[in-house]
Amino acid sequence: MHTVVDPLKRALQIGPQALAVIDGKRQVTYAEFAHRCELLVGALRGLGVASGERVAILANNSLEFFEAYVGIPSGGMVVVPLNTRHAMPELVYALADSGAQILLTDRADVGELANTVERVISLSDEYEALLAAATPAPLGEGVVETDLAGLFYTGGTTGASKGVMLTHRNLIANALNWLASVPQNASDRSLVMAPMFHAAGSNGILAAMWQGALQVPLGTFDPSAVLDLIEQHRINMTLGVPSMLAAIAEEQHANPRDTSSLRVLTHGGSPIATEVVRRTSSAFPSARMIEVYGATETSPLATLLDDEETLVDSPLARSCGRAVLGCSISVRDTEGNELPTGEVGEVVVAGTNIMQGYWNKPEQTAEVLKHGGYWTGDMGHFDAQGFLFLVDRSKDMIVSGGENVYSTEVEDILYRHPGVLEAAVFGVPDDIWGEAVHAAVVPRADSPPLDPAELIAFCREYIGGYKVPKGIDVQHEALPKSGPGKVLKRELRAPFWEGVDRAVN
Amino acid sequence: MHTVVDPLKRALQIGPQALAVIDGKRQVTYAEFAHRCELLVGALRGLGVASGERVAILANNSLEFFEAYVGIPSGGMVVVPLNTRHAMPELVYALADSGAQILLTDRADVGELANTVERVISLSDEYEALLAAATPAPLGEGVVETDLAGLFYTGGTTGASKGVMLTHRNLIANALNWLASVPQNASDRSLVMAPMFHAAGSNGILAAMWQGALQVPLGTFDPSAVLDLIEQHRINMTLGVPSMLAAIAEEQHANPRDTSSLRVLTHGGSPIATEVVRRTSSAFPSARMIEVYGATETSPLATLLDDEETLVDSPLARSCGRAVLGCSISVRDTEGNELPTGEVGEVVVAGTNIMQGYWNKPEQTAEVLKHGGYWTGDMGHFDAQGFLFLVDRSKDMIVSGGENVYSTEVEDILYRHPGVLEAAVFGVPDDIWGEAVHAAVVPRADSPPLDPAELIAFCREYIGGYKVPKGIDVQHEALPKSGPGKVLKRELRAPFWEGVDRAVN
Repeated sequence: MHTVVDPLKRALQIGPQALAVIDGKRQVTYAEFAHRCELLVGALRGLGVASGERVAILANNSLEFFEAYVGIPSGGMVVVPLNTRHAMPELVYALADSGAQILLTDRADVGELANTVERVISLSDEYEALLAAATPAPLGEGVVETDLAGLFYTGGTTGASKGVMLTHRNLIANALNWLASVPQNASDRSLVMAPMFHAAGSNGILAAMWQGALQVPLGTFDPSAVLDLIEQHRINMTLGVPSMLAAIAEEQHANPRDTSSLRVLTHGGSPIATEVVRRTSSAFPSARMIEVYGATETSPLATLLDDEETLVDSPLARSCGRAVLGCSISVRDTEGNELPTGEVGEVVVAGTNIMQGYWNKPEQTAEVLKHGGYWTGDMGHFDAQGFLFLVDRSKDMIVSGGENVYSTEVEDILYRHPGVLEAAVFGVPDDIWGEAVHAAVVPRADSPPLDPAELIAFCREYIGGYKVPKGIDVQHEALPKSGPGKVLKRELRAPFWEGVDRAVN
Repeated sequence: MHTVVDPLKRALQIGPQALAVIDGKRQVTYAEFAHRCELLVGALRGLGVASGERVAILANNSLEFFEAYVGIPSGGMVVVPLNTRHAMPELVYALADSGAQILLTDRADVGELANTVERVISLSDEYEALLAAATPAPLGEGVVETDLAGLFYTGGTTGASKGVMLTHRNLIANALNWLASVPQNASDRSLVMAPMFHAAGSNGILAAMWQGALQVPLGTFDPSAVLDLIEQHRINMTLGVPSMLAAIAEEQHANPRDTSSLRVLTHGGSPIATEVVRRTSSAFPSARMIEVYGATETSPLATLLDDEETLVDSPLARSCGRAVLGCSISVRDTEGNELPTGEVGEVVVAGTNIMQGYWNKPEQTAEVLKHGGYWTGDMGHFDAQGFLFLVDRSKDMIVSGGENVYSTEVEDILYRHPGVLEAAVFGVPDDIWGEAVHAAVVPRADSPPLDPAELIAFCREYIGGYKVPKGIDVQHEALPKSGPGKVLKRELRAPFWEGVDRAVN
């Protein structure tokens, strides 16, 4: 029976004068934040936006993003966060698909997007005047838990972008599951460094508000800026994708700040290499490290690996943890039968955090919402203590000479090499084996040049011959990544498969 | 989308061989517990109990009570825990009202109850054979979150017993709210010392199972047995009513055990005197003390006062805390308008933990479920930090010479007196003032005789003259209490009001 306004209402009850958001030089209390949300809703109503209609935002993390994220659904409308890393055709597609007629943005030039909506509102030039002229509208009135709160367009490593429909109940469920899994309190200070348009970035927003805690958005990711903010605001919690953790750990080792306030350091969105956990933990010894696994479709939390830094030398280092409290996870065969411990199948998530479906895509919805759960497309198995091990995106599995090769296992070995900063492993066509294991690696800036033959010999020390890459490309640009930080293997793989008349992806 | 079987399923996933319950010499793992629940459901099905039908249990805390509490709803039926402290006419009323045809009980003689149901099953003589002969039935199949999980008959300080209808969703919501509010983990060992038929006793059951944690039921309350169990099983958490805490604190001061494992000591059900907090905290210095406030109708948690032992010398000592996470609390006037900070009104609770209503009592349901929340009948006000202060049950308020006297305030003063073990304050008829403040007190066994005149003088030191009791009865029996431990002021008050032609209660 809760809606996204309820966390804000509790924050107002326990500390209206407590700081809600610090964005650069701007600080707003919860009372001010709530009033600004009321003004935003009033302004949108004045522009003719009715209940259930969509309002899009294309922006970096900011105070205004918090207001859009909380205020728009609290006003009975649907927020549509767009992916700032998407190319123009992708943005036009998502905006048109959502049917939003208003776009809030921090971009000076929105190009074709201007033709897709009725009105573009500049966050820097128009937003404050809009609020100042608005009549505040009450929050939460007439809004029910089954109402759509947001359409979240997935960055997606595969296929076209889809609008994930999350209700108020979905977002509230994730907030409570997160609070049940990780102790938090009113004096916490969270840094929101992952992009808020992505489920990882917005994961903690409502939970923090429920506690009446302070949040600090970081506009665009920069390792040095992250450390400065942690030091300046005595940040306790933050969440990023593994590449962010790797970057801030490097920066902290190179130019240490006082990060002793950091208590919880969470990562998710893609698998992490053990070496990154080790380096991150040594850079931030005060922090307990947590790995989370989930998807936009699960609002997003599904599993959680706690105290990860204590597990680096155990087999659990390769697990993504156990079902978060309030969420049920199973591993199933293609017919939907639950598989016993140890057997690999598709990971299925059930709970009140599961999306209602993909906007305007009933067929794609039916493919993933079945047997009472969300089918993640990820393959995994449980151990006897309920720890989930993901073996790979099913589509990333390489079949070579009849043997299954799970690319994360090979990547983990490559990451152990002291000269490797980034690594991605994928299948390329091979006349003999069907597919051959292939790798793309990026060297560390400060390391001697990487020699593919030496890397291959290095791998051979750790894994069976059929798993060792047959070829390795050393490249000096960062690997291509989707919005949430997943390596786009599709792009790496594509050139090899041009003209090959069998597809593996 | 969760039902009460989901916490059990997670426990099975993360530790099927972990201990679920230790009851005396009996120990069952989660795998065994789940199997026994399957057998119970199979047995009940074999006896003809259909989905949605009620099954009653009248028993002290035990392994079987856990099985009934989790198993019966997981099998799609409705568990009806009866109050072991109720007199026979009250039990017959509740059992007949529920429509249950089967009664599980640990009583050798159930008297008239045998005529109220089709079958009485003795937990000591018949239960194990029944399970042994049963075909296990799957748990959770066809059960949905909106199904009724239990009918919980309220002990009630006022009026007739009512069957509180709690759904699977209600119980699951309370479990998550509790987990979100108080950090718990799989290695916790909880002592269930409050009676499980009462919402306070069963509060933590599903939360502990969600963590895969161990629970130890105590059959009947005895302070010495509580301390022995804490020492023997290295108990971390327990919850009781204030009179239980007072008793175990006395016992611990007199005959100390090793209770250093105790981390969380929670109480609820009735207001606690500051002196009891102080004595309890000094008896159990390792424990963080938590006060909870709620009602059977709220499944039961509504507010929570954390680290209570640190607040005894502050104004917050008289607060019952802030809204638990996942629950919304407001204070309202009789028209349903939310009142500002500081103003006294009726406490209203909203959230997914609110009951569906009273069984077969639509009118009484409509009286308390209105304006989107549950109207507790308790009067209170918030401070500026969202701490709720209960001033009294509205019906317990004494109006004397036009001044409102809240009896808890007077009781708190009486409890400060070193010779007072128990105190209750209520209104008696007075020709001049309308009502006069009156008290009943019970002396400590080891203190010198209590002198009413001396007590009155003692009160006068702390509170305004109109609040000071005009008369005080010293009695040597414990004050009369309802099942959950609330003092039955009705019974204390009644003799004074006989023949008086105006009623205050």
